[in-house]
Amino acid sequence: MIRAHAALSAKGRLEPFEYDPGRISAHQVDVQVTHCGICHTDVAMVDNDFGFTQYPLVPGHEAVGAVAAVGAQVDRLRVGQRVGVGPMCGSCMRCEWCEAGLQHLCPTVEMTIVGGHRGGFATHVRVSNWQFAFPLPDEIKSEHAGPLMCAGATVFTPILQYGVRPTDRVAVVGVGGLGHLAVQYLAKWGCDVTAVSSSRDKEEQARDLGARHFIATRGTDELRRAARSFDFIFCTVSGDLPWDEYVAALRPQGKLCLIDLPSKPLVVGAFGLILGERSIVGGQTGSVGDTTEMLAFTARHGIKPIIETFAMAEPIAHWNTPGRVKPDSVSFWWRDG
Amino acid sequence: MIRAHAALSAKGRLEPFEYDPGRISAHQVDVQVTHCGICHTDVAMVDNDFGFTQYPLVPGHEAVGAVAAVGAQVDRLRVGQRVGVGPMCGSCMRCEWCEAGLQHLCPTVEMTIVGGHRGGFATHVRVSNWQFAFPLPDEIKSEHAGPLMCAGATVFTPILQYGVRPTDRVAVVGVGGLGHLAVQYLAKWGCDVTAVSSSRDKEEQARDLGARHFIATRGTDELRRAARSFDFIFCTVSGDLPWDEYVAALRPQGKLCLIDLPSKPLVVGAFGLILGERSIVGGQTGSVGDTTEMLAFTARHGIKPIIETFAMAEPIAHWNTPGRVKPDSVSFWWRDG
Repeated sequence: MIRAHAALSAKGRLEPFEYDPGRISAHQVDVQVTHCGICHTDVAMVDNDFGFTQYPLVPGHEAVGAVAAVGAQVDRLRVGQRVGVGPMCGSCMRCEWCEAGLQHLCPTVEMTIVGGHRGGFATHVRVSNWQFAFPLPDEIKSEHAGPLMCAGATVFTPILQYGVRPTDRVAVVGVGGLGHLAVQYLAKWGCDVTAVSSSRDKEEQARDLGARHFIATRGTDELRRAARSFDFIFCTVSGDLPWDEYVAALRPQGKLCLIDLPSKPLVVGAFGLILGERSIVGGQTGSVGDTTEMLAFTARHGIKPIIETFAMAEPIAHWNTPGRVKPDSVSFWWRDG
Repeated sequence: MIRAHAALSAKGRLEPFEYDPGRISAHQVDVQVTHCGICHTDVAMVDNDFGFTQYPLVPGHEAVGAVAAVGAQVDRLRVGQRVGVGPMCGSCMRCEWCEAGLQHLCPTVEMTIVGGHRGGFATHVRVSNWQFAFPLPDEIKSEHAGPLMCAGATVFTPILQYGVRPTDRVAVVGVGGLGHLAVQYLAKWGCDVTAVSSSRDKEEQARDLGARHFIATRGTDELRRAARSFDFIFCTVSGDLPWDEYVAALRPQGKLCLIDLPSKPLVVGAFGLILGERSIVGGQTGSVGDTTEMLAFTARHGIKPIIETFAMAEPIAHWNTPGRVKPDSVSFWWRDG
């Protein structure tokens, strides 16, 4: 039996919950969880914000731990090996997308906390395909690895997918859970990085993380004055933004990349896109290969998420105290204890 | 003196108008107009729809004719040579964009009927840089060349810019002035082409032009059933579309390319873009090199716009008869006579 914490209904408290994962099949891996991050999406799934949560829901899709068991066909992982598990836990490995190495685009991709799968707020998490249990480089501490598996992969993938070059001028909108990692990756990628935030509160932190410039938007015309400035804008916030101003801030052929999900549909004029061949593009947590590259790059450059850590029982208490769980600029942590 | 027809005020009639272009300077070219197309944008500029028309406005940015004079520095064109002139007539040739061969992205690009430049509804049109007077392949008739210079270049450029591959499944929304050329280019490019129109009225024409499939949208669920079908969608209509349905019709990593200017700002959910790494991209009439490639490809494959031709005086009469000028699926023509 796996001991877990689950929400039994929408917006419910997390309650102790046990379940039997059944016999392990040929390509599966069981991971004994030592650490697990808390992501915005965990909160949204508990609350059924997307409308497809299946209860009981065991949240947690930034899990880190040791391989506890492997299926008969798994020969690339060994019991005891340290791995990370992110938002995806399997894909069909047979369709055109999987064959092209783009498992995240598989029409039947399996998500760690969607569709009956159970997440990492538990003693163990089961991974449907061993490829989605990622060996962690020694340089990355377990408490840092969790947010990398989701937030890290989500901001790193578009850098690969959309061909960001080290010569590019890039802006990162929002210096929160996603943005503070995006600033680091893009600075280490070699780019000229501008952090964009509503106020100047996070300017010092953003500069420490690698931003060379800072734009505060609230009550200023700094964004408007940045027209035609950026090859890429990474939008990591969920607010409803003045999209035309952000499109105008792109250089010709520039791309505005949506990473976090804006709270409302975008309203954007076509003129700004057509003049200058600009694009609005979607950034998704990437393939097995993308995540592997993210981990290697993170280790090589000493990139770290900013975290808070808690002993195992604490996040549940936090979760169940309204207003306490704020998976935003810092990541809450669940350490096995 | 150049004899022309000009609108003297917004929504005005076209009136006979003469002007002195002044001495020809070093890099300029004068073209004696034999043919000129009428484009939607000519109508919009006469009516000041964009708010920046300068009157008197001589419309016409799909001009074809013979080189009448060249500036002192022009050694690649000779008097008498047949050329086409499109929406752009010059750029600085010194900025980073011009140096990169992307003259259409030059911040001071000069437009043939914008900012005091005077267009092709005239005996002559002056081109600011000789590079924007394009020698026409012999295979292309003068009456066909006009719409190629604007509509042709506008639908052809995104094929180059966004890397459409002959293996791609593409949809063309609208079978009008732009769309009927897009279907031909994409079919000759080797793609599997679907034409999309509100009704089935244009199905036979679209199939004759090279479409293998047809979707009629009004009162059907054909578009919805085409979810996850297209690598590219070329949107050549100006209507307000159900954008989320079109985004859903893209395959993963697919691109929805805006070519004509929708009448209203787009309203589009971010979810469909993020899941599947989809994009909305702007298509613009391209560089000198793009237009040169368009002309060569057009000639090689025998691609032709569908046109109506009129003797010189007629289009003015049409223009000045409300409801007569419909620069849509057919192009109106002004033949010197």
